[in-house]
Amino acid sequence: MNYQELFSLIRKKQSFLCIGLDTDIRKIPQHLLETEDPVFEFNKAIIDATHDLAAAYKPNIAFYESAGPKGWESLQKTVDYIRQKTKDIFLIADAKRGDIGNTSAMYARTFFEAYDFDAVTVAPYMGKDSISPFLEFKNKWSVLLALTSNPGAADFQYLENKLTGKKLFEEVLTTAQSWTDKNQLMFVVGATKAEALANIRQIAPDHFLLVPGVGAQGGSLQEVVKYGMNEHCGLLVNSSRGIIYASGDKDYAEKARQKAMELKNEMAGYLKQKSLI
Amino acid sequence: MNYQELFSLIRKKQSFLCIGLDTDIRKIPQHLLETEDPVFEFNKAIIDATHDLAAAYKPNIAFYESAGPKGWESLQKTVDYIRQKTKDIFLIADAKRGDIGNTSAMYARTFFEAYDFDAVTVAPYMGKDSISPFLEFKNKWSVLLALTSNPGAADFQYLENKLTGKKLFEEVLTTAQSWTDKNQLMFVVGATKAEALANIRQIAPDHFLLVPGVGAQGGSLQEVVKYGMNEHCGLLVNSSRGIIYASGDKDYAEKARQKAMELKNEMAGYLKQKSLI
Repeated sequence: MNYQELFSLIRKKQSFLCIGLDTDIRKIPQHLLETEDPVFEFNKAIIDATHDLAAAYKPNIAFYESAGPKGWESLQKTVDYIRQKTKDIFLIADAKRGDIGNTSAMYARTFFEAYDFDAVTVAPYMGKDSISPFLEFKNKWSVLLALTSNPGAADFQYLENKLTGKKLFEEVLTTAQSWTDKNQLMFVVGATKAEALANIRQIAPDHFLLVPGVGAQGGSLQEVVKYGMNEHCGLLVNSSRGIIYASGDKDYAEKARQKAMELKNEMAGYLKQKSLI
Repeated sequence: MNYQELFSLIRKKQSFLCIGLDTDIRKIPQHLLETEDPVFEFNKAIIDATHDLAAAYKPNIAFYESAGPKGWESLQKTVDYIRQKTKDIFLIADAKRGDIGNTSAMYARTFFEAYDFDAVTVAPYMGKDSISPFLEFKNKWSVLLALTSNPGAADFQYLENKLTGKKLFEEVLTTAQSWTDKNQLMFVVGATKAEALANIRQIAPDHFLLVPGVGAQGGSLQEVVKYGMNEHCGLLVNSSRGIIYASGDKDYAEKARQKAMELKNEMAGYLKQKSLI
């Protein structure tokens, strides 16, 4: 999928909602624990209930990896199920990988070949050659950490470069644009810093931004849209716990649909306001 | 294992060699491909041939992950085999993880509970709360990326902080020391920049440094020791491809032992010179 195709998908779905499948076996409804693969059963019901409302799903790889080989099977089944259910979904592996070239190449093969993801989140610390192997896969995306939504973002991401006066996350936004174009690169920008989005939009006017932190992490969708939306939408806004754990009971899928519907309707409103649909 | 125990292990083995188990199914000898688990069979023979010479093993998780669930089984068997073979080994998961708190906690559980690793490599970009969950496991280590050995290290790691005049990797070395002590924290420092080690030793005089890049990546062991060794050794020096792929034929384990023996003997010499053994 390229930039235009992602924009078309968002227009078709009237949604730029990304649902984070951070499925924790300790948090899912009790009755699922009797099934053969509780994590997959949970995801399956969430997907059935929300696939028409979401532009993207984002499984958080840590939650699958922590279950060992069985967890990777749950992930595989989840990816296959989504692909079988609908063609109109952008699929992000939230893995935050990044290593020297030959190792990043292995990670790229994992997520783009072994699993059929459209995108992988990657960490910038090791620079260009840690990201390049991901970019070699045409129509696949790297989602680069720029400004994250956690307290630790303040430790290094705001350091000001003596030479340029730019903060580290601004350097990441600028430098990474020289590595490839907007068809394969988007940036993670934490929504708890919605005002920072205006600044980020100046540095990266065209690129898609993946915005976590709306909901449980406290960001406001309205603020994100105000400062972050561009003429191709340019946003994927993620909600994980706020949707998938909207209820801890047997009605979890139904409640997840309600929460996703609320966000989707709000998003459709913004897209209309901006005359994008 | 704590700082003193790691130093004792190094003295006992007369070695600070870390062997990187970057086992690539496309690079291992042909005859192994007929076995049920070629990656594990390869590792088993390498471990049999080198466990008395190495202070540490470092499986590179990407190489296992890329094989899907089966790869994680190979990793589990490899870890179990090492633990069963010897108690005198420090075991590092080269995973370069790092995410918001609840996600890092999942990764920590994966490597410290589901698999019995002593240490995990972690990326600093997301700051303190992305590392803290790893530090909650007593006697387990975080190995934080500071200065890496790849070309992309130049993209961000050398940016100078306007406020302090320190480079980003120096800020990482300084800031991270406020998070915990030398018993649970070591740093990755690329050996292709051996002279930079003198500077790094000033910033982190006591901490262990994990030094990749000796061998295939071009670093010199002598230089690393000259600038990096402290009075508790303070070094784990990694070699991966130079040892495990010393031969691509049936004699691969024997040739791996020869290469490991050369490095171990050189290391024992340096430890004697410094009166550490």
